[in-house]
Amino acid sequence: MADSPNCDLKSLSPLQLFERVTEQGEKVRALKAGKAPKDEIDAAVRMLLSLKLSYKTATGQDYQAGLPPKDLVLLNNGTAKEEEEDFVDPWNVQTSNAKGVDYDKLIVRFGSSKIDTDLINRIERAIGQKPHRFLRRGIFFSHRDMDQILDAYENKKSFYLYTGRGPSSQALHVGHLIPFIFTKWLQEVFDVPLVIQLTDDEKYLWKDLTTEKAYEYAKENAKDIIACGFDINKTFIFSDLEYLGSSRGFYRNIVKVQKHVTFNQVKGIFGFTDSDCIGKISFPAIQAAPSFSSSFPQIFNGKENIQCLIPCAIDQDPYFRMTRDVAPRIGQPKPALLHSVFFPALQGAQTKMSASDPNSTIFLTDTPKQIKTKINKHAFSGGRDTIEEHRKYGGNCDVDVSFMYLTFFLEDDDRLEQLKQAYTSGELLTGELKKVLIETLQPLIAAHQERRKQITDEIVKEFMTPRKLAFDF
Amino acid sequence: MADSPNCDLKSLSPLQLFERVTEQGEKVRALKAGKAPKDEIDAAVRMLLSLKLSYKTATGQDYQAGLPPKDLVLLNNGTAKEEEEDFVDPWNVQTSNAKGVDYDKLIVRFGSSKIDTDLINRIERAIGQKPHRFLRRGIFFSHRDMDQILDAYENKKSFYLYTGRGPSSQALHVGHLIPFIFTKWLQEVFDVPLVIQLTDDEKYLWKDLTTEKAYEYAKENAKDIIACGFDINKTFIFSDLEYLGSSRGFYRNIVKVQKHVTFNQVKGIFGFTDSDCIGKISFPAIQAAPSFSSSFPQIFNGKENIQCLIPCAIDQDPYFRMTRDVAPRIGQPKPALLHSVFFPALQGAQTKMSASDPNSTIFLTDTPKQIKTKINKHAFSGGRDTIEEHRKYGGNCDVDVSFMYLTFFLEDDDRLEQLKQAYTSGELLTGELKKVLIETLQPLIAAHQERRKQITDEIVKEFMTPRKLAFDF
Repeated sequence: MADSPNCDLKSLSPLQLFERVTEQGEKVRALKAGKAPKDEIDAAVRMLLSLKLSYKTATGQDYQAGLPPKDLVLLNNGTAKEEEEDFVDPWNVQTSNAKGVDYDKLIVRFGSSKIDTDLINRIERAIGQKPHRFLRRGIFFSHRDMDQILDAYENKKSFYLYTGRGPSSQALHVGHLIPFIFTKWLQEVFDVPLVIQLTDDEKYLWKDLTTEKAYEYAKENAKDIIACGFDINKTFIFSDLEYLGSSRGFYRNIVKVQKHVTFNQVKGIFGFTDSDCIGKISFPAIQAAPSFSSSFPQIFNGKENIQCLIPCAIDQDPYFRMTRDVAPRIGQPKPALLHSVFFPALQGAQTKMSASDPNSTIFLTDTPKQIKTKINKHAFSGGRDTIEEHRKYGGNCDVDVSFMYLTFFLEDDDRLEQLKQAYTSGELLTGELKKVLIETLQPLIAAHQERRKQITDEIVKEFMTPRKLAFDF
Repeated sequence: MADSPNCDLKSLSPLQLFERVTEQGEKVRALKAGKAPKDEIDAAVRMLLSLKLSYKTATGQDYQAGLPPKDLVLLNNGTAKEEEEDFVDPWNVQTSNAKGVDYDKLIVRFGSSKIDTDLINRIERAIGQKPHRFLRRGIFFSHRDMDQILDAYENKKSFYLYTGRGPSSQALHVGHLIPFIFTKWLQEVFDVPLVIQLTDDEKYLWKDLTTEKAYEYAKENAKDIIACGFDINKTFIFSDLEYLGSSRGFYRNIVKVQKHVTFNQVKGIFGFTDSDCIGKISFPAIQAAPSFSSSFPQIFNGKENIQCLIPCAIDQDPYFRMTRDVAPRIGQPKPALLHSVFFPALQGAQTKMSASDPNSTIFLTDTPKQIKTKINKHAFSGGRDTIEEHRKYGGNCDVDVSFMYLTFFLEDDDRLEQLKQAYTSGELLTGELKKVLIETLQPLIAAHQERRKQITDEIVKEFMTPRKLAFDF
């Protein structure tokens, strides 16, 4: 269809789109001035609106006549280039693109490797099962040395998993579960032990919290984590504030990392300044140390140099780039990594999720009614403004948050593909797509809440007690 | 006696002395040129030699014609001023003065208070005993808030003692014992508990040592410390590398201090740079934390906010200035302090003692013969070059290292005063003074070695096991 601009527009740069909108606006004005037939004018206006939507989709900004897209500079050869790249570090993720961060660029910038079809197929062969939907759909999209983990695994050499969370509040949201859902799957399919770090010390250092409060959050968060279904015989969850004072090995590895990283280095990696407290400056070593099995003499029965695999969101990579740099210098193996994309806020992938704004995403404590209201009211839609336009031009799954959430939580690949096609073609309306998401999330959250209710303080205590895990190294 | 230059020369500045030596040298040349009577020339030469010795005594430098004393600049009004002050931080102590560091200046610079006669008398009244020779002789010369400790003590409110050592080698020398001899006395007369920190983590960070070696040194050093006679029921000795991993309270206080100190601050206090490792940068918090009783929940049975008194050499004060600054901000009492002077090297108070140079002082492992040889061969003498000169002009106790060592180790005040008078008057010769020191140190060291032999690994383990100490708070 000539007047459906979506297909060919996708390949245009923001600046080229800007020029197309400007041209189309002039065309509409000319038609109106020339008193052209009404249906001709209407078609041109529809095209203009569609172009404006495409422009907003690509840039995250409303079209403004005479104002080219922000953050773009015109190069001499007339092509547009982003002036500022996405910003990603462990405390801030910023992008101006409604599709979210450009992950391919991030792979290049961070020097990691893409999880490609070959690697996914290799994982499938190694475990003899279908890979997790997070792998199938590029939600875990980047890695470091996963091939080495598989080499070793295929030669009957095992490894352990390490992931974590900063307990900054009592309430977790669905996005917080991504690394844990995936880690639980990895634990199951590879049959390996797992350590989960709760960085209550980090939260004490960064936030306006007492150590007591941070530790309390750690124990509360542990309940939601345990409710993901981890095997108590193979999982050790620890609070830094508690475990540092009860481990023979943890502090030794921390101080070893601290000896081999300078302030200049953490300044470069994390952007610390001279005004930062010395706790922040030395903290990266505390997140690094669990990458070494000798930090857990009780857990691994004194076994050292066990290979470590860390599933985490890509914003945590700076810690582990540093860790991998230090590891050989302190006689330890480099940890391998699997990186996930960021979980988008309901308001759109370029919006920051905020624990203080309950409407920014779905929380694990939300009732079915809250889930329904939040999605209907706040989930950013890639659909058209009117039903007629939507039927004609279709919706945009690349920016539609309900669709994004479904890629995270709807297990059925065929169903997801059907939804995508129906939404893109205009057959499926925004309200209908939202309904699918609501009906997907409501039972998931309810089931999580049911499991969480069973997690007593005693169970948390057991998970958090240093003890030998079941493993077969 | 007109030709005894010692009395009036003491009041001269180094530059004035330099000018007197130059004048006297010209006088000798003139007498020789004018073929003056031999006894007149001899007297002038003796005077010249004596002036040269006084010059060396005051400046630590040999007189060189035409070269005014180093590190001195002539002010407009013609008086001399030291260009560089003594340098004192936890890793370096530098002075160009043979008498050692100017401690009165250090008190002003560090903002501490002098231990004056009033305070010493007050301590005597509080404990009902003669104050330790280190107090009587100004070896512990400076303090912070010792009056508050005594206020509280007089009102039946107790406190605990905290001191420490960086275990950088196996061999301790007599100077290392100064804080421990004094702390043992404080423990006895005030009947209070004591914690002793062995900063094996610091030594790992600063030196070319493994954590294993540093921890081994810590346990070895603990034997020499225990041999000072500490009460096992009231003393807890801990290695950072070990205790950090076995305390519920220590790391919490460390991270609290780390949150309240910026890199700018440790840069100012300790001179750290951007190239220093993050371990060094955050270490000051680890030396600070034992100032708070909540770092020792097992030791003090969970009792918090017990006042702390820290006896240490003055070079450790920067750590505790920082600690006192942070304490109120984390709801803890400021520790009080008692500061000692530095222990001089055999080669003189301006010389650096070196663990790698066995001749730089007396080690706790030295045999009686080694002690004798070292003192006779290496102890810097304030005596005159010939017996005749010495008898005539007397020795200088201010720079004589044997006499300095006796002020540390000879208990008898009257005997020390007699020695001083006899040496200053020329009645006592250098060899005789050295003999007194040898006869004082030989039995002390032998007794220490005898006690140390009794300290088994089991006893060390007991001292280093976290357990409730005996106290009466």
